[in-house]
Amino acid sequence: MKIKLIQIQDTNEKYLKEGINEYLKRLKKYAKVDIITIKPIKNAKHLSVDELKSKEIEEIKAKIDPRDFVYILDERGDSLKSVDFAKKIEKIAINHPCITFVIGGAYGFSDEFRNAVNGMLSLSKMTFSHQLIRVIFLEQIYRAFSILNGDPYHNEG
Amino acid sequence: MKIKLIQIQDTNEKYLKEGINEYLKRLKKYAKVDIITIKPIKNAKHLSVDELKSKEIEEIKAKIDPRDFVYILDERGDSLKSVDFAKKIEKIAINHPCITFVIGGAYGFSDEFRNAVNGMLSLSKMTFSHQLIRVIFLEQIYRAFSILNGDPYHNEG
Repeated sequence: MKIKLIQIQDTNEKYLKEGINEYLKRLKKYAKVDIITIKPIKNAKHLSVDELKSKEIEEIKAKIDPRDFVYILDERGDSLKSVDFAKKIEKIAINHPCITFVIGGAYGFSDEFRNAVNGMLSLSKMTFSHQLIRVIFLEQIYRAFSILNGDPYHNEG
Repeated sequence: MKIKLIQIQDTNEKYLKEGINEYLKRLKKYAKVDIITIKPIKNAKHLSVDELKSKEIEEIKAKIDPRDFVYILDERGDSLKSVDFAKKIEKIAINHPCITFVIGGAYGFSDEFRNAVNGMLSLSKMTFSHQLIRVIFLEQIYRAFSILNGDPYHNEG
């Protein structure tokens, strides 16, 4: 199983990088996980929020293979329990060799992009920092695979 | 405003400690935040889950002042948007000099304790690691205060 995680801009905090690396390391036993980082858009200061968003989405689209199942993290997405998220991954894997998750930038996605993707997931009604979300979400992917493999991580909390 | 955060066991990962310290530092401009850590229960291996839970809850109760507003993080709690969580804190602060948040251990709380507290908050339908939750939740408290103070952090994402 291959997981692609597309994100906007590099992680700037050292402690977040360590958290990300920790879960990437643990995930190795379950799946091949690639993180693809979109570089900051040039001249962003001179663009409107909509222009910036649409440029970011163009860059994201360029990284997506049409055969991928594309799942975006979005406040309008479904809220799932960890066990149900794991089942969803299992189901998707039957028909798709790769799931591409996309974590948006500070301004999120456009409606057009929301309509074009295969699934939307909401981690919380609360807004989390889009930097911190990377660690939270990798932990969740790790948890999903540990559930699917019957490993004890999930019940240990 | 005083915030007390009670948690079970020390944070064992260095990167999580750094994340916690980062938000504690940022929170200083808004509130006095104390973290109280309950030491691991002795002979835990020889106890049932219920016995362990009830011993942990006894220790937690010993740290709570009867005048505090006690808010636990629990899967049965309310899901709130960050803005509504901020409003809730503002409202509680009118009558309570201190809000005590409690993050449970791996096995969570008992129904008896749930009935005794003032509020329950659920960060997500998903299960997060109870270690990672400390950083997530401190970021959320920081976000709440930045909202209440009209600071730009929340909209910056």
